[in-house]
Amino acid sequence: MASPAPDVHLLEAQLSSSELCRGKLLRVLSDTVSLPDGAQATREYVVHPGAVMVIPLLVTADASEVRVVLERQFRYPLHRVMIEFPAGKLDPGENCFDCARRELLEETGYSAQAWAHAGVLHPLISYSTEVIDIWFARGLTAGARHLDAGEFLDVFTASSDELLRWCQSGEVTDGKTLTAALWLQNVISGAWKLDWVSP
Amino acid sequence: MASPAPDVHLLEAQLSSSELCRGKLLRVLSDTVSLPDGAQATREYVVHPGAVMVIPLLVTADASEVRVVLERQFRYPLHRVMIEFPAGKLDPGENCFDCARRELLEETGYSAQAWAHAGVLHPLISYSTEVIDIWFARGLTAGARHLDAGEFLDVFTASSDELLRWCQSGEVTDGKTLTAALWLQNVISGAWKLDWVSP
Repeated sequence: MASPAPDVHLLEAQLSSSELCRGKLLRVLSDTVSLPDGAQATREYVVHPGAVMVIPLLVTADASEVRVVLERQFRYPLHRVMIEFPAGKLDPGENCFDCARRELLEETGYSAQAWAHAGVLHPLISYSTEVIDIWFARGLTAGARHLDAGEFLDVFTASSDELLRWCQSGEVTDGKTLTAALWLQNVISGAWKLDWVSP
Repeated sequence: MASPAPDVHLLEAQLSSSELCRGKLLRVLSDTVSLPDGAQATREYVVHPGAVMVIPLLVTADASEVRVVLERQFRYPLHRVMIEFPAGKLDPGENCFDCARRELLEETGYSAQAWAHAGVLHPLISYSTEVIDIWFARGLTAGARHLDAGEFLDVFTASSDELLRWCQSGEVTDGKTLTAALWLQNVISGAWKLDWVSP
């Protein structure tokens, strides 16, 4: 007999699942689960196809400064314009790398010579299945943007120092972008290494 | 006449709002908005009361190492146990600091002598109104936990170096905890200052 999992005192098991709602954009499930003590509880959560975020690096000719490509976009749930890295949802059947390349091109117009996969981020573990794949891109060539219908955003660049200052001051509060700042700071310092590939 | 806002080319305006669903835990709205070009679009999003996260610091007697108090909790939407900092939702009418103190005590049993407000984090700007207030706590005294009914979690400690390694390796993927790691790294290095208060 297999030994019990070390986390058995934490696990919840699905008893039933039903759709709470399906909008044009969001699908919400409501599951009944059994708790570790045998009691039952309800878990409601958004089902999400997954997303990517790209941290596009612009290195100055003398490599004295790392600059990044950022966006300013109005985010309706918060009724404000947010500073964030390029990001977007996976299309059905699309792999993460293709999505990263597509979103960078569509939203900013940039193509990249080299890419590095950093890690993943779960933005909201209490009520969403969403996972965001984090990519770095460098060797950027500017081109034309191809925004989706109904998509409006500004593209701009900032130094990594500026970005980190904005994270401290509260000008940047988007969770995925704060996580990107953690990666950026440690990649620039050399503490965290990336494996760059040129597809 | 007032000059136009600089972001007017990005703004969306509410035309109507209706409830898409209201579960036991989640309430989802569906709004029709006018886009900057005059077209209309649908925005669906979870309405959230706000939350807090606490970064509890344990400093060794000789101050050679900073350790933090962390939790391991099963997160049903992801079907896995996640490493995360103590956090929780605001009760109706509760202010953020009271919530931080309450959640730290309830989930970990610790009381803190001093607190510092770091900043805020919007975990999911595309489809949630949630904002997480970020607090540091120090001068910890251990006591008894008071978990909510149906709440199961392990409390443990780790050094800040361990936590940062886990953020790099992918053992930590919770967005709020990755944001906390950015704050922790910069507070420990002295780059970001905190204003500590002893209430």
